[in-house]
Amino acid sequence: MPYLELAPDHALPRAEFSRTEILAAVARLQGFVHRTPVLENAWLNQQLGCRVHFKCEHFQRGGAFKIRGAMNSVLQLTDEQASRGVVTHSSGNHAQALAIAAKIRGIPCTVVMPENSPKVKMQATRDRGATVVTCLPTQAARIATTQEIIERTGATLVHPFDQANIVLGQATAAWELLTEVPELIAIVAPVGGGGLLAGTCLSAVWFHTDRRVRVFAAEPTGADDAFRSLQQQSLVTEQQPKTIADGLLTTLGQWTWPIIQHHVSGIVTVDDGEINAAMRVFWERLKWVVEPSGAVSLAGLIQMVQHQRFPPANHSTPPQIGVIISGGNRDFVPV
Amino acid sequence: MPYLELAPDHALPRAEFSRTEILAAVARLQGFVHRTPVLENAWLNQQLGCRVHFKCEHFQRGGAFKIRGAMNSVLQLTDEQASRGVVTHSSGNHAQALAIAAKIRGIPCTVVMPENSPKVKMQATRDRGATVVTCLPTQAARIATTQEIIERTGATLVHPFDQANIVLGQATAAWELLTEVPELIAIVAPVGGGGLLAGTCLSAVWFHTDRRVRVFAAEPTGADDAFRSLQQQSLVTEQQPKTIADGLLTTLGQWTWPIIQHHVSGIVTVDDGEINAAMRVFWERLKWVVEPSGAVSLAGLIQMVQHQRFPPANHSTPPQIGVIISGGNRDFVPV
Repeated sequence: MPYLELAPDHALPRAEFSRTEILAAVARLQGFVHRTPVLENAWLNQQLGCRVHFKCEHFQRGGAFKIRGAMNSVLQLTDEQASRGVVTHSSGNHAQALAIAAKIRGIPCTVVMPENSPKVKMQATRDRGATVVTCLPTQAARIATTQEIIERTGATLVHPFDQANIVLGQATAAWELLTEVPELIAIVAPVGGGGLLAGTCLSAVWFHTDRRVRVFAAEPTGADDAFRSLQQQSLVTEQQPKTIADGLLTTLGQWTWPIIQHHVSGIVTVDDGEINAAMRVFWERLKWVVEPSGAVSLAGLIQMVQHQRFPPANHSTPPQIGVIISGGNRDFVPV
Repeated sequence: MPYLELAPDHALPRAEFSRTEILAAVARLQGFVHRTPVLENAWLNQQLGCRVHFKCEHFQRGGAFKIRGAMNSVLQLTDEQASRGVVTHSSGNHAQALAIAAKIRGIPCTVVMPENSPKVKMQATRDRGATVVTCLPTQAARIATTQEIIERTGATLVHPFDQANIVLGQATAAWELLTEVPELIAIVAPVGGGGLLAGTCLSAVWFHTDRRVRVFAAEPTGADDAFRSLQQQSLVTEQQPKTIADGLLTTLGQWTWPIIQHHVSGIVTVDDGEINAAMRVFWERLKWVVEPSGAVSLAGLIQMVQHQRFPPANHSTPPQIGVIISGGNRDFVPV
């Protein structure tokens, strides 16, 4: 099992990431995003020898945590900015989340998608009221097309992960989790671009009780830039991703990397078989539809427990661990 | 849409089905079965113009409502009966439910299954601690094999649906639903052998508030013996079922038919495409894994609403309707 134990120093890279800013995001989002349930399963707890508290972001609006960051950004636009709309590049959950957030504020939303994106995802984004602009399936084309739209319309870019307001919005998920279960000794979160993981780190830093809450990252083996970045202690921005976890293909960004570098206590990578096995647990035991990216955190915890890397063996009561399920947007399979 | 409106007379066919007996089952099952959640979905409510309260038996122990009847039976065995064990014939959710119930009481359990049953179902039943005995895949062989086991071991037969204690156990699901949402004007339940539907009728008779709660049956078009029975007002016991709803293949029984005959306000049948469409709603919108049989009730309600058969059009506030999701035991589909 590829596992890397780290000694975080908990330095905060930027003033934007204060306790006050997170609480402001919590207050701002109230009524706009769901406070998703935190749920346990007796069978799984017994299997793993700990109490696993799932933060159920697959039950969130739009089926994923992404609405938190998108809404947090859209709500802070001035009226003048808002009137010119928002734009992003994403073929995944962030596209739909931004479309929902823009619709709530009643402003235009444009989403740049590679022309080879699944038609069903393009249509789902249009159904939410956004305009879809296609581009060549390269990173360069994506950025150029987005830039062209910004210059033409004056729209504000709402990045899928690499902006302060996005990280602060995503931090509210772990804030809710820690508020509901203050006894947590650790939280496991998936990592792609790092918005959710960085936000989880911030809330763990600011809202733990007497003892520190450790944050563990779980990443697909086939898109392990965060693992390599932490191993080398410098940001890796190149990879040819190959994994079923299609929400975790991107590399870390300039805003997310420093937080992750200073706060993550360990990172584990999981292969597609292990991701499917975790999805199977959700399906068979909890009767939940979880997308591959959303099952990566449980897959990571299972690996850590099986290889006795975490939790520590000596405990009188079962240790309590938070596991963030990032989303549930998997295509329906008819019988 | 095949739909039959009925004028129930609410006669109670047998003394066993008193209010007291249902409440005794409720008390007996406490701590042994889950009180499953009752949940709504805002999007679906808007689509259907009513408030749909799902009784989530896919979150029940064993993944289906069946544990209610099985446990209610097993708990009432004398010690002497219990020592000789229980037996049933089932390849579905009842098999696993009885195995769980027997394990809780610590008694032997034998399940007769057709030799062509899926290996995964045989193994799941064995995993629950039951002995699986295979027989030829005919109704006659099933009954003969079960009878032989009873004679040899003295085990007590716990039928999948056609016994008073089974019906009373299944009635506790609707009792919980009505206790939680007394404002319900109707409940939709699926019908196969009729244990759940008959139990739902009993609780609707005994535990409605000031106005009567109507009970609607939803049945697969490819296994519509209940529809034909109600049409002819006499029990139809023959059919060659063909539907993806594999939990609803059986015909009604001697105990369930009279209750259904006297209490059901309407019955609707749904084809496999409509069942898949309802499963898709659960999958995409609620992120729940529901088995085909479990989606039949929602499929039925959707048809009734679309064809304006129910609920009535004139209402100041959205009518509140209970929909029982019978189970979620669908085989996992990996990505």
